[in-house]
Amino acid sequence: MDVRKVECQTLVIGAGTAGIEAYKSAVKDGLDCVIVDSGPLGTTAQRSGELPVSLLMSAGQSLHAIENLEDCGITFPSKVQADTSNVMVSLRAVRARATSEVLSFMYRIPENKRIRGKAKFIDSHTVVVDDCIEISFNTAVIATGSSPLVTYEQSRLKNILTTNEFFELEKLPKSVAVFGSSKIGLELGQALAYLGVDVAVFGQRKLWALTDDSILTVAHQMLSSRFNLYIDTFITSMEDEDDNGYAIYYIDDRGYENYLHMQSVVAATDRIPNVGGMNLQNIGVKLDRTGCINVDPETLQTTVDNIFAAGDVCHAEHLSSIAMAEGRDAGLNAATFPNLTKRRSQVRVDIVFTDPVLAIAGKTLNEMRDYARVTGDTFITTEVRLSQGHYRGLRADGGILSIYTSVKNHKILGAELCAFKGDKIAQLLALAMENELTVDTLAQYYFFNLSAETVITQAAKEAVKRLNKK
Amino acid sequence: MDVRKVECQTLVIGAGTAGIEAYKSAVKDGLDCVIVDSGPLGTTAQRSGELPVSLLMSAGQSLHAIENLEDCGITFPSKVQADTSNVMVSLRAVRARATSEVLSFMYRIPENKRIRGKAKFIDSHTVVVDDCIEISFNTAVIATGSSPLVTYEQSRLKNILTTNEFFELEKLPKSVAVFGSSKIGLELGQALAYLGVDVAVFGQRKLWALTDDSILTVAHQMLSSRFNLYIDTFITSMEDEDDNGYAIYYIDDRGYENYLHMQSVVAATDRIPNVGGMNLQNIGVKLDRTGCINVDPETLQTTVDNIFAAGDVCHAEHLSSIAMAEGRDAGLNAATFPNLTKRRSQVRVDIVFTDPVLAIAGKTLNEMRDYARVTGDTFITTEVRLSQGHYRGLRADGGILSIYTSVKNHKILGAELCAFKGDKIAQLLALAMENELTVDTLAQYYFFNLSAETVITQAAKEAVKRLNKK
Repeated sequence: MDVRKVECQTLVIGAGTAGIEAYKSAVKDGLDCVIVDSGPLGTTAQRSGELPVSLLMSAGQSLHAIENLEDCGITFPSKVQADTSNVMVSLRAVRARATSEVLSFMYRIPENKRIRGKAKFIDSHTVVVDDCIEISFNTAVIATGSSPLVTYEQSRLKNILTTNEFFELEKLPKSVAVFGSSKIGLELGQALAYLGVDVAVFGQRKLWALTDDSILTVAHQMLSSRFNLYIDTFITSMEDEDDNGYAIYYIDDRGYENYLHMQSVVAATDRIPNVGGMNLQNIGVKLDRTGCINVDPETLQTTVDNIFAAGDVCHAEHLSSIAMAEGRDAGLNAATFPNLTKRRSQVRVDIVFTDPVLAIAGKTLNEMRDYARVTGDTFITTEVRLSQGHYRGLRADGGILSIYTSVKNHKILGAELCAFKGDKIAQLLALAMENELTVDTLAQYYFFNLSAETVITQAAKEAVKRLNKK
Repeated sequence: MDVRKVECQTLVIGAGTAGIEAYKSAVKDGLDCVIVDSGPLGTTAQRSGELPVSLLMSAGQSLHAIENLEDCGITFPSKVQADTSNVMVSLRAVRARATSEVLSFMYRIPENKRIRGKAKFIDSHTVVVDDCIEISFNTAVIATGSSPLVTYEQSRLKNILTTNEFFELEKLPKSVAVFGSSKIGLELGQALAYLGVDVAVFGQRKLWALTDDSILTVAHQMLSSRFNLYIDTFITSMEDEDDNGYAIYYIDDRGYENYLHMQSVVAATDRIPNVGGMNLQNIGVKLDRTGCINVDPETLQTTVDNIFAAGDVCHAEHLSSIAMAEGRDAGLNAATFPNLTKRRSQVRVDIVFTDPVLAIAGKTLNEMRDYARVTGDTFITTEVRLSQGHYRGLRADGGILSIYTSVKNHKILGAELCAFKGDKIAQLLALAMENELTVDTLAQYYFFNLSAETVITQAAKEAVKRLNKK
C-alpha cells in the first residue's frame, strides 16, 4: 500500500478537550502542527459527559420543582402528569449546537493538517495513521482521553449501555440500573429519578471520590431519599431477559436474595485511559499500574523527552477544566521543546451535580492525612451542618461542610461537602485556597446575606475558635 | 411620673441586624450592656426584606420552571393550573422560624438589660426611653435601621402598601403596581410575575444601583420580557377606586395618556434612615443631606466621640452583610472606647435576585470614573456577552458582564453584570478583588467546566488582550 508521508513540528493525537487546547496553544506562534483524531468529533464532555448529563439534570430539576411547590403554598387542583417522551431528542438538539463548535473549529484547520484515523507510534519521532499515512514530528502531545470501563460480568449482558450509548437512546427507559457510584453514575441516577424513571444505583460506601466519613454519611442519607442507592450490595447474578430487560439478583440488607427487574443497565463504574493500539510501551512511554501515561506533573513530559500527554489519558480526574489547562500547557511545552515551562497546578475543585451537590476543594481528608504524615504538620477538621437560614429560598435544608485547616499556618488546605448549591461553596473555597487565605481572614469575611457561601464564614469561625484553644 | 434609672457601659439602640451584632460584640468581654428596641422583634431583612422576598422568589421560580419544561422535551397533556392562594401563609410560616431565632436571642439577654421603647437623647451620655426610663451610658451604638419611603402623592392613596405591609397580606393580590426600580421593587416585580400576578413596575432608566449603560440596556431587555417594566414613565395621576383598587394614569411611549387598573400599589422607591425623634442634632450627632448619620468609615464614630452608628441608619446600602460587619465593629469600638480599631471595609458585593440576576462587585462604572479622576489612573472596560455554553443546563441564555481593570496595575477594581447565576459570579469576583488579583492571574484560572464562573476567565482574557495592545 502507498504510504503518504507528512512532516510537522508538533503532532497532537486526539481532538477532545485536551487535544484541541494543545493544538491551539502549539500553533499560536505559527508552528507547523498536525492533529489526528479517530473518534466521532466532539469532546467526551460534550458527547457523553458533563454537557448531556447537565442537560438531563436541568430537565429533572425543573420537573422536580413541581413537587416542591406545595412547600411554597402552591397546589394543583388536578394531578400534574408530565410526558417526558421528548427529553432525549431535545437533549441531543442542544448538544448538537455545542458539538458544532468543535466541528467548526476542526474545519478551520487546513485539510492537510487534520487527519482522521488511529495513530500508532513507530519510534519517538514517527507515527503511522491507519497504516496509510506516516507522520514524522519533532514533538507530540498524546491526548486520547478515556473510555467507560465495562467489567467482564457486564460485558456478557446483551446491549449493556455505557454513557457513550445512553445519550443516544431514542427515549428515556422506564427503569434503569446504574452500576457505579462514580460522578456520572450518581448524576445519572439523580437526574433519571427526578424525571420519573425507576432507578437503582449500585455503588460503594465510598461514594465518588469522597473520603470523609461524616460527609459520606450525610450524602448517603440525602441521596437515598431521592433515588434507590444500593451500597456495597452483593450482586449474585445478572441475566438477560431477552427483549424484556435484565434480572438482577442481589443479597439485600437482611441477608435474603432479592430480585430487581430493570429495562436498561448502565455501566458507570469507572473510565479507563485510551492507550491501546498506540504501541506506547515499545517506544518507551511508560504507564502507571492503572494504565495512565506517566507524566511529570510540572512539565507534562512523558518518559520519552519529546512526547507530552494531557487530559484523561494521564490521570483519573475526568475534568474538562483540568484537561483544558493541561492541553494548553502540554501544547506550549511541545512547541517550545526543549525549553520547558514549569506549570503550577491550580487548587483542585471537583463537583458532582446531584441534589444536594457533592464536592471537593483542595485536598480530601485522606490526602490531608498523607500530607500530615509527610510534612509533620497537623490539621483540624471543622464540620458545619447546614440548616435553614443559610440559603435564599430557605426551603432546601440539610447538608454538611468539612474544612481541613493547617494548625501551623491556619490556611485551609482542603474541604469535602454535601450541600445544596455546594458548587458555589466549592469554587469559592478553591479560590480562597489558591490565594492561601487563613481561617482567621475568612472568619472576618462577610458573604451576601442568605447565600450558601455564608457557611464558609461559619466554618472558618469554628476553626478559629478551635485553633485558639490549642 | 416616676423615672427609673439604669446605668451601663454601652447602650445599643435598635435590635435589628446591626444592633444585634453590636450587642454581641460589645458584651463579649463581659462589658455591661443594655439594648433598646421599639419595633416588632425580628430584623428588617427577616420581616420585610431579603428573607420574605427570597421565599417569594423561590416559589415563583419553581412555578416558572414548569414553563421551561417544554424546552427540555417535557410536555403536559392537560394544562397545568396552579393554585397560589396559600403562598403568603406558607411564606410567613417559614419567616416565623427565622424571626424566632432573633426572639430567642433577645430572651437570653437578662430582662433588665433589654428595654422596649423609643430612645431619645438628653445629652451625649443619657437617653430617656418612652419618658419613663433614663439610661446613662459611657458609649452608645445607634442602629435604628431604615424604613420604606412613601412619597407625598403615594401617601394620599388609601391603603398603599410598603414592604412592611405587603408580606402581611392574606393572599397574593391579582394585580400589583410597584413604584420604584429599587432592589426590592425589581425583586417583588419579578417574583410576583412568576407567580402569575399581573405586575407593573414603574422605575427609572437607571435600574437599582447600576450605572453602566451596556448592562442597563441588557437588563431592561431581559427583565421586560419577564414583567411589565415602565421606564421613566410620566404618571399623570393616581386615584383610589374605593374597594376596587387603583387607577393609574400615565403617558405611554407614543405620548398618549393611558390607564392601568391595579388591585394593589406598593411603594418601593427608596428607604429612609430612622433618625426621627431621637433628638440627635441637639446633642451634636450630624446627619448628611439624605438624613443618614455621618460616621467615620474607619471607626464608625459619629460626630459625637462616644457615640457610634452602624447599618442602614448611616448609609443607603441596605445590605445585611454590611450591617452585620458594621454592627460587629461599632460594638467593638464602643466597648473599647477611647481605644479604637480602624476597620478595613470589604470589597462590596450587592445583588438583585431577579431572573437574570443584577449585581455589582467592587466599584460601579461611575465610581470608576471618579476613581480615575482622583487618582489619575486609567482603566479599561471589558464586556462579555453570555451565550449558551457558559452554564450547566445551558438553556438559560443571554446576559452581560463588564469588568473594570486598572491600566496601571491590571487589577480588577469593579464589575457590573446582568446574568443568570450572576450571584455566584459577583461573589467570586468580590473575593478576587479582595485578594487584589490581576486579570493576568484570572485569565489563567480555570473554573469548573460549564459553570457560570467561567465567564470571569473569559472577561479576564479579553482584558489582558486589550491591555497588551496598549
